[in-house]
Amino acid sequence: MHRHEPPGYRCPFCDVLAGRESERNALTDIVLGDPHATALISPKWWEGNLGHVLVVPNDHFENLYGIPVDRLGSVYALVQKIALALRAAYACDGTSTRQHNEPGGGQDVWHFHVHVFPRYAGDRFYERHRVTRWATPTERLIYADRLRAALGASTT
Amino acid sequence: MHRHEPPGYRCPFCDVLAGRESERNALTDIVLGDPHATALISPKWWEGNLGHVLVVPNDHFENLYGIPVDRLGSVYALVQKIALALRAAYACDGTSTRQHNEPGGGQDVWHFHVHVFPRYAGDRFYERHRVTRWATPTERLIYADRLRAALGASTT
Repeated sequence: MHRHEPPGYRCPFCDVLAGRESERNALTDIVLGDPHATALISPKWWEGNLGHVLVVPNDHFENLYGIPVDRLGSVYALVQKIALALRAAYACDGTSTRQHNEPGGGQDVWHFHVHVFPRYAGDRFYERHRVTRWATPTERLIYADRLRAALGASTT
Repeated sequence: MHRHEPPGYRCPFCDVLAGRESERNALTDIVLGDPHATALISPKWWEGNLGHVLVVPNDHFENLYGIPVDRLGSVYALVQKIALALRAAYACDGTSTRQHNEPGGGQDVWHFHVHVFPRYAGDRFYERHRVTRWATPTERLIYADRLRAALGASTT
């Protein structure tokens, strides 16, 4: 229902989860995972909120409408862990999460994904919505390593 | 951890869930609920995305960091139902969801809540972040009735 994925779509999240890397998604972007969901550093960065994380179900579901509720719960359980890890690793002032469904809802990758952002007082996050760029693999790795260190520390 | 609720805080969501109404939250705003979560029309409206919905856990948890994962799953299971109902009831082009943690993350009510928005092509939702107002109880009722009709139709 309300699906927009084109025929023959090559899914970038399915690719990286299967070990097929690209300029935008590398295996070293993955910071945490379990049998049902995976968290990775986003390749698209908002300038005031660098190094945010995407959490995706490991199986391919296009959007919120069709993902089974148990898988949805697994995604958000991982979102919670990532929000706490961002708070610890980035010394941010808060966090926020969001996700988009359909082109009219702002979606542009056809595999359900939740954005988990570090937030900073006065970051004008929404007003600066268009101030984005693609991070390099090296830039992503710096943030991924910081998150992995925080996640390691929080789970021991 | 990372809590900001002031001592003696009077929670507007706990109030309405207990039947105590205010100008901003009335019982007729509630469109769907179950033992763990409730969905109600938001009193604060974004001008391009009228009648959006808040989904809250029935028990009081300040933010994402501390809500038990099973309750978090219950909240998002209800978010999914509401997104589908918005799509049917409002004839929107898509939906998006978001939530905020801590003042630095944009939170201003100290009870975990997820915003579920109807989205329209070209609505410039994020760029128009400051274009908000408080809806009247009557305005909210019109949207609540539309959602209840869609939810009734989708569950029979």
